[in-house]
Amino acid sequence: MAQWLEKIKSPADLRGLSRDELYALAAEIRREIIKTTSQTGGHLAPSLGVVELTIALHCCYNSPKDKIIWDVGHQAYAHKLLTGRYDRFSTLRQLGGISGFPKREESPHDPFGTGHSSTSISAALGFAEARDMAGEDYEVVAVIGDGAMTGGMAFEALNHAGHLGTKLTVILNDNEMSIAPNVGALSNYLTRLRTDPTFRRAKNDLEYVLRRIPAIGETVVKAAQRLKDSLKYLLVPGMLFEELGFKYYGPIDGHNIDLLINTLNEVKTRQDPVLVHVLTEKGRGYRPAETDASAFHGLGPFDIRTGKKHKNNEKPRFTQAFSRALVELAKEDERIVAITAAMPSGTGLEEFARLFPGRFYDVGIAEQHATTFAAGLAAGGFKPVFAVYSTFLQRGYDQVVHDICLQNLPVVLAVDRGGLVGEDGPTHHGAFDLSFLRSIPNLVLMAPKDGRELRGMLRAAFRHQGPVALRYPRANCPDTLEDESWPRIEIGKGEVLADGSDLTLIAVGSMVQVAEEVAARLKPQGIEAAVLNARFVKPLDQDLILRYAAKSGKVVTLEESAVQGGFGSAVLELLANAGLTCPTLTLGIPDNFIPHGSRQELLELVGLTPERVLETVTSWLGHRWVSHG
Amino acid sequence: MAQWLEKIKSPADLRGLSRDELYALAAEIRREIIKTTSQTGGHLAPSLGVVELTIALHCCYNSPKDKIIWDVGHQAYAHKLLTGRYDRFSTLRQLGGISGFPKREESPHDPFGTGHSSTSISAALGFAEARDMAGEDYEVVAVIGDGAMTGGMAFEALNHAGHLGTKLTVILNDNEMSIAPNVGALSNYLTRLRTDPTFRRAKNDLEYVLRRIPAIGETVVKAAQRLKDSLKYLLVPGMLFEELGFKYYGPIDGHNIDLLINTLNEVKTRQDPVLVHVLTEKGRGYRPAETDASAFHGLGPFDIRTGKKHKNNEKPRFTQAFSRALVELAKEDERIVAITAAMPSGTGLEEFARLFPGRFYDVGIAEQHATTFAAGLAAGGFKPVFAVYSTFLQRGYDQVVHDICLQNLPVVLAVDRGGLVGEDGPTHHGAFDLSFLRSIPNLVLMAPKDGRELRGMLRAAFRHQGPVALRYPRANCPDTLEDESWPRIEIGKGEVLADGSDLTLIAVGSMVQVAEEVAARLKPQGIEAAVLNARFVKPLDQDLILRYAAKSGKVVTLEESAVQGGFGSAVLELLANAGLTCPTLTLGIPDNFIPHGSRQELLELVGLTPERVLETVTSWLGHRWVSHG
Repeated sequence: MAQWLEKIKSPADLRGLSRDELYALAAEIRREIIKTTSQTGGHLAPSLGVVELTIALHCCYNSPKDKIIWDVGHQAYAHKLLTGRYDRFSTLRQLGGISGFPKREESPHDPFGTGHSSTSISAALGFAEARDMAGEDYEVVAVIGDGAMTGGMAFEALNHAGHLGTKLTVILNDNEMSIAPNVGALSNYLTRLRTDPTFRRAKNDLEYVLRRIPAIGETVVKAAQRLKDSLKYLLVPGMLFEELGFKYYGPIDGHNIDLLINTLNEVKTRQDPVLVHVLTEKGRGYRPAETDASAFHGLGPFDIRTGKKHKNNEKPRFTQAFSRALVELAKEDERIVAITAAMPSGTGLEEFARLFPGRFYDVGIAEQHATTFAAGLAAGGFKPVFAVYSTFLQRGYDQVVHDICLQNLPVVLAVDRGGLVGEDGPTHHGAFDLSFLRSIPNLVLMAPKDGRELRGMLRAAFRHQGPVALRYPRANCPDTLEDESWPRIEIGKGEVLADGSDLTLIAVGSMVQVAEEVAARLKPQGIEAAVLNARFVKPLDQDLILRYAAKSGKVVTLEESAVQGGFGSAVLELLANAGLTCPTLTLGIPDNFIPHGSRQELLELVGLTPERVLETVTSWLGHRWVSHG
Repeated sequence: MAQWLEKIKSPADLRGLSRDELYALAAEIRREIIKTTSQTGGHLAPSLGVVELTIALHCCYNSPKDKIIWDVGHQAYAHKLLTGRYDRFSTLRQLGGISGFPKREESPHDPFGTGHSSTSISAALGFAEARDMAGEDYEVVAVIGDGAMTGGMAFEALNHAGHLGTKLTVILNDNEMSIAPNVGALSNYLTRLRTDPTFRRAKNDLEYVLRRIPAIGETVVKAAQRLKDSLKYLLVPGMLFEELGFKYYGPIDGHNIDLLINTLNEVKTRQDPVLVHVLTEKGRGYRPAETDASAFHGLGPFDIRTGKKHKNNEKPRFTQAFSRALVELAKEDERIVAITAAMPSGTGLEEFARLFPGRFYDVGIAEQHATTFAAGLAAGGFKPVFAVYSTFLQRGYDQVVHDICLQNLPVVLAVDRGGLVGEDGPTHHGAFDLSFLRSIPNLVLMAPKDGRELRGMLRAAFRHQGPVALRYPRANCPDTLEDESWPRIEIGKGEVLADGSDLTLIAVGSMVQVAEEVAARLKPQGIEAAVLNARFVKPLDQDLILRYAAKSGKVVTLEESAVQGGFGSAVLELLANAGLTCPTLTLGIPDNFIPHGSRQELLELVGLTPERVLETVTSWLGHRWVSHG
């Protein structure tokens, strides 16, 4: 089956192939990507869209000497197949297998790791400047989608690169949508470049008119010449990029290998920043993905023939619990508005958007703007919720500090994907949120143990007169969503789930259930463990925690977040401040970047499954502690 | 003297004044700003540049009903003088006095607090959307400098606003420089708008030519019309903004009150996003500031007549120690390159830039790009240092996590202004860095106690094969910079400064000297305190800390950073992990936003002066602790 791929050990092997063979290879790559992702899940549609582009890039550039940097990186499957990873491709996104994103340690053909959007031009400019300073000679190419181009840092990088005038190629992979259909003026602009005949017509008309100007003296000729010069400049499509110092090429058909190769070869001769505008179709070559690219952006295993996702009889996810609760609350309070940064589906806002289109904002891939925009809406009297993945909220950290918390504005941050996300790996694990959010004054930081508690917390969050972060994992709720009551949640109050005086397990969010299981298994060993659901990382339920710590004399904290500076650390601070010294074990994500794999495998890896926690706690209980003071 | 200002109790009082009187008022405002900042220090040049613009805004808009949002906010002194704060203006930037930035709690005329750059359009769009959803009727104006416009989030906001088409006015305050002369393609573009006659010439030429086209049939007429339409569109200056969905007005003279008022009144009639391009001169009306706007951007007290800063016989600052050490190291290693985000002077990179212009990058106000660009340079084989204020590094947090630390790239973050900065207040205090940096894997995080140690640390940082953050305060070095040796600093090793077995004071950075003083004052009370200079927040010198904690049985940690999740928290984690329970007191910046005031006053306020620490420690030593386990 893999007639061509087996022969491509490195991109150099492409160069002997005829154009027909390259197209045959493209078809084979598509089959391989569809086959593998149907089993492993993954970013199918983005990768299908750039197969010809990837082939053309590797025909024209000499990787790894030349640096090809993929923005976000979820479209790099064809790149992986062509750069010596075909034999391992079936391990995609599996524990110990190859990553779903470019990774420096995985291959010399991945010069820069990615995962988050809009970084490629900055990284490419760094390489290009390093090359020039070192007097070396290689090409640097950034491939960035039109969605990623709406991220502010892409603009910062264009602005800097255009200023420096460094030799650098940016491929704008314009597929008219990134994850959701793109929004923003830039997107409209690109559409106009693609479709508006005015640009071309104006150019043709101009030449027609100019040819007909009567020769009535030198003034007019000069004027005409000057006009021609300025119009030549002004009529070029891609003005916006040209204004920023980039030579614009395009738009060109991103599925035409000949055209791509010819253009790239021309571009290589230039010594300045170039932007090549390439039009591609997301999901290209796989009918179900072509017709619904959004659903096939990133997905789990599916049936190749039908395109249907494999059914799982799983419980509802936390995202769904949020989605439903939000819609119910928004029906009661019309000041509730919702914001997403290009993730309406992933963050569970689709239903809200359908019901309240006038109160829904998709701002594009722009977390900084989203955060401050939310603050502005709150200052204007509304109750915004910004639903965002934990790891993407890192992009808006400064804005959370200054625009929301310093001003104590009532914005709700619905922090989805807090904790380990699984197959997307280290760039997508929400491992740091409890640490980076906890040190911000005024912010209330809570995490529900199940879907029902999430409902209560979301309602409490909207009632609170200040900023709130509500954090939940990429996981199933332990409960069903059938209970439609609104449990009353008091800010800063936890709950006692089990009593016991030998040991206190204090857990937050997804770890509450684990703590309960551990307590149940300790009981037969004669150890009575209290289980507290902290609910709040900030403010802590000080009375409750101190009471149980004093009573049991031993504390174990459990969180699905970095132990450095996280929830456990907050408990340690509380105990120290209270002058209460007792042996305390803080369990959470350890101080290293966690690889990709299934969520279950990763929880096992970091020691946060009930079995692993039980082992650790039992072993710890056997210790002798050194007490002073 | 203050003939007019005394009469202006609110902006409404402006409306009775004649144009001549408005100019007289402008002169008076300038005198007041110069007089006050000569005593208090402050952002002189930015505020002098927008006096007429501020008057015009308050003539045309009805604040506080209409919302005027100043980007960064350091140019808002005239705004403060015109909105009821004249009588308190002499308290500018003083403890308990008015802030150097707009602040919601200070006045209803400050609808949105600021301090960091590029947020105003996002906030303004939030207000404008809130207005439209609520069916209210007011104007929203964002005033943003050309420097702030290079920040990515300003682009994100333009992109979103242009897409929505919301009624909103953006005033682009173009003074050709923000803090340092602006860099970037956008800046070049604005210069072209200002100066390049091509735009105007092309437009004139076109009309000339079109008038002369012979009437040779309908085709040509139609073609000409179509041409005219498209050219009208294409020849508008400000294309870049027009492409993003904004109607462009300008450029107009920002010191001509009539012109400003006429333009703003016209703009108010529009129902869509408008950008008004206003040209101003930084430092306008004060000769020393006009000739050196960079030196007068933000400064301490100065002599009005000469413009000379008041001499202080202070010791050299940490920034200088960094500056000198960097230059020396760069002479030895040509792979060292330096990056600033529009702060070459503040971060001490001017001398480096002068000596090594080819290895110096000012990327504009673009911390996200700066961070990933540094990672790219490191991946390309260089040793970049990104010198950045602690609070601005918050903008690049995600990029520090992913592009630098996840890839374990050898980038040095020179984190200046770590801790309390004084008069600039809460938006500029570097209060969170130890917390948000400490939880990132792979990062080495250190803080020197003096200038000499900074030298050793910087050298160690460049030798380390991974990411390093070196953090120092906006303060004088306790030592002189005469010692030009390079103390050997081993990663993860602290030092013992005083031995003692009653108590261990473990301090980091600026708090080391405080700890030594406290120890010296405890001695007469018969308390022998050990003093450890931790040097490293990460990795901690575990052996040293555990040894002394066990020996003394009582630990006090001292840091000039948030106690939540900071250095003290790291020590608590270490002790807990080691199973060592001992009373521990963590001293640092408490869990609230710290106001403006002198650094000394603020250290006193948060309890971090030797006297206050001594009090706290003495009182704490008198406690009885509850020990368990």
